[in-house]
Amino acid sequence: MNLIYLDNGATTKVDDKVIKKMLPYFNEKFGNASSLHQKGQEARMALEESRRTVANAISAKPSEIIFTSGGSESNNLAIKGVAYEKGRGHIITSKIEHPCVLRTVEELEKKGFEATYIDVDSEGFIDLDQLKNSIRKDTILISVMHANNEIGTIQPIEQIAELCKKHDIIFHTDAVQSFTKIPISVKKLKIDLISFSGHKFHGPKGIGALYIRERIKLKKQMHGGSQERKLRAGTENISGIVGFAEATKIIKNSDIKNMTKLRDKLIDFILNNIDNARLNGSRERRLCNNVNISFDAVEGEAIGGYLDAKGICSSTGSACSSKSLEPSHVLKTIGLTHEEAHGSLRLTLSKYTKEKDIDFVIKVLPDIIKKLRKMSPIK
Amino acid sequence: MNLIYLDNGATTKVDDKVIKKMLPYFNEKFGNASSLHQKGQEARMALEESRRTVANAISAKPSEIIFTSGGSESNNLAIKGVAYEKGRGHIITSKIEHPCVLRTVEELEKKGFEATYIDVDSEGFIDLDQLKNSIRKDTILISVMHANNEIGTIQPIEQIAELCKKHDIIFHTDAVQSFTKIPISVKKLKIDLISFSGHKFHGPKGIGALYIRERIKLKKQMHGGSQERKLRAGTENISGIVGFAEATKIIKNSDIKNMTKLRDKLIDFILNNIDNARLNGSRERRLCNNVNISFDAVEGEAIGGYLDAKGICSSTGSACSSKSLEPSHVLKTIGLTHEEAHGSLRLTLSKYTKEKDIDFVIKVLPDIIKKLRKMSPIK
Repeated sequence: MNLIYLDNGATTKVDDKVIKKMLPYFNEKFGNASSLHQKGQEARMALEESRRTVANAISAKPSEIIFTSGGSESNNLAIKGVAYEKGRGHIITSKIEHPCVLRTVEELEKKGFEATYIDVDSEGFIDLDQLKNSIRKDTILISVMHANNEIGTIQPIEQIAELCKKHDIIFHTDAVQSFTKIPISVKKLKIDLISFSGHKFHGPKGIGALYIRERIKLKKQMHGGSQERKLRAGTENISGIVGFAEATKIIKNSDIKNMTKLRDKLIDFILNNIDNARLNGSRERRLCNNVNISFDAVEGEAIGGYLDAKGICSSTGSACSSKSLEPSHVLKTIGLTHEEAHGSLRLTLSKYTKEKDIDFVIKVLPDIIKKLRKMSPIK
Repeated sequence: MNLIYLDNGATTKVDDKVIKKMLPYFNEKFGNASSLHQKGQEARMALEESRRTVANAISAKPSEIIFTSGGSESNNLAIKGVAYEKGRGHIITSKIEHPCVLRTVEELEKKGFEATYIDVDSEGFIDLDQLKNSIRKDTILISVMHANNEIGTIQPIEQIAELCKKHDIIFHTDAVQSFTKIPISVKKLKIDLISFSGHKFHGPKGIGALYIRERIKLKKQMHGGSQERKLRAGTENISGIVGFAEATKIIKNSDIKNMTKLRDKLIDFILNNIDNARLNGSRERRLCNNVNISFDAVEGEAIGGYLDAKGICSSTGSACSSKSLEPSHVLKTIGLTHEEAHGSLRLTLSKYTKEKDIDFVIKVLPDIIKKLRKMSPIK
């Protein structure tokens, strides 16, 4: 069966160009970038060339990019790095961040740091007034994601960046879902730290990056060798890094336009043709590839199961917590009831998504919802 | 020019079988192992199959293996994991551990833990009496590497394991250099934590593993999702994990015999034919692929440069510190003077090393040493 993969928020297919670029670094140019001989220098050159490519993508300097093992490590390093460098203080974040931000901030609270978790409105936008009013003299860091992984809401990071600049507070954003889909320029915006993850934009798994603005000091979290500006010990994953860099060049404007068009087609169809369906997140400021809908009186996991049987891969929320029975913290925070949150379905597109894929979803989804509602005890 | 790669202690070529096994996980079986749909379950199955393979290799249970981003992360997690879980106490390690162990223990000292760094003898063997006498009531962890990355000395981990068992102390060993070259069975030996790194045994870079004996509790170091027994957040690097597992099956007994034979041929030639050359490390209990020699009155880096010009990749010590001007802490600890340490050369073989490669080294090395000694101001 030919699968229709609509779970690109969880992970993406690695692009063939990316694989082609990576391959020589497994068995030809396989040196250790710290070795002085030609095999090592070959690896070192690929590493620094990749760093330039990634820096270019956000108008940063190469020296401001370090590579990590993924988005979770980047977020852990950014937040713990600032906190432990400062030693004490207050951190502000939102209630709908990814678990790797929330759990990290909670861990810091146990270590004596203080934290404020800002509310979001019914579309998932951060409450800017509350954010403003939460700023204290000892606020050391504000961490607010660029776009939400479950509902696709794009936060007003321009305004948050201005606020941070005004108060001289370090600003971190988790751009794991948005990178390559929404342009970011660190020249235009005062963002100090940005997290990226390769496998969310057709790069390989196990590789991420962190942008660290010049003069921002972080305390290292992985001790050992002097790799990555002494901020991240461990032999550099050159094939992964080369793949990550290549992937930054993959998505074109036409891909984004196409995803937006197909996203809107799917949302419009569902809202117009299936009763008691509600779009989660914003209609306007929304990731180009995200559809998240709550259906009354059905279980999202049951919808997912029936879609899976038809060859459609979907999810009920973030893959990281998809095995947990707790409903999504994001959906609860935007005001959904326990039942509404449990009745949600996320479909995330990629540049590989075809119109006929969306047409197939449109064809099978209404019957699945109807069937499940007939069986539902909640009705 | 066909290179002769003799820096396999720094990193190795990924085996073709490993690459073949990894490839489908980039663009076919690319799911997120936490996703519930078939694409996710396909990844989950590969993950658990890989875990079984790695567990088998050391007679462990699959539930005792977690995957990390590499050897440095495994060592950081093992040592910090035990320390922060216990909260306080005393740690014993050796003076010749890899920097990712030494820097981690030093970091813990700053956090209020106490540490003892045990001496080694002139061949690099840990002083077992000193180790015994250093044990205190509050000793929580002993971390001693299996085989040294610079001089290849194989530590008596059987005796250290016995000692730890007797005193009920957690025992961690860094097996990054030894894994697949020296058999380890956690059924036979009471080792509680063992660190592994994929790229040292023909697997990919960016992937490692940690064996954690049942009932040993670690405090997680990467916060976020519930992956890897809630010990290591982040989407699992499936292609890397599959490659790591495949690599555990690569090296055969005949490869080890061959490396040992070629190692001995090279050592014998140098000691018998080049004046004022001294073998660093033990002649008998030595990694099958390690040659480390000090030459009087020459710089190791200069030898490396001349060998590189002849197409031979070597190193002067650990790649992690090869850009530093400080002489190796390992060579200084086994008693070499500053000059002797600077005059050292490491040649590390792999299963791909051919007799003609060693013969070529034998052909060109004496002249290089002679030439450098003529130029040397130290003579």
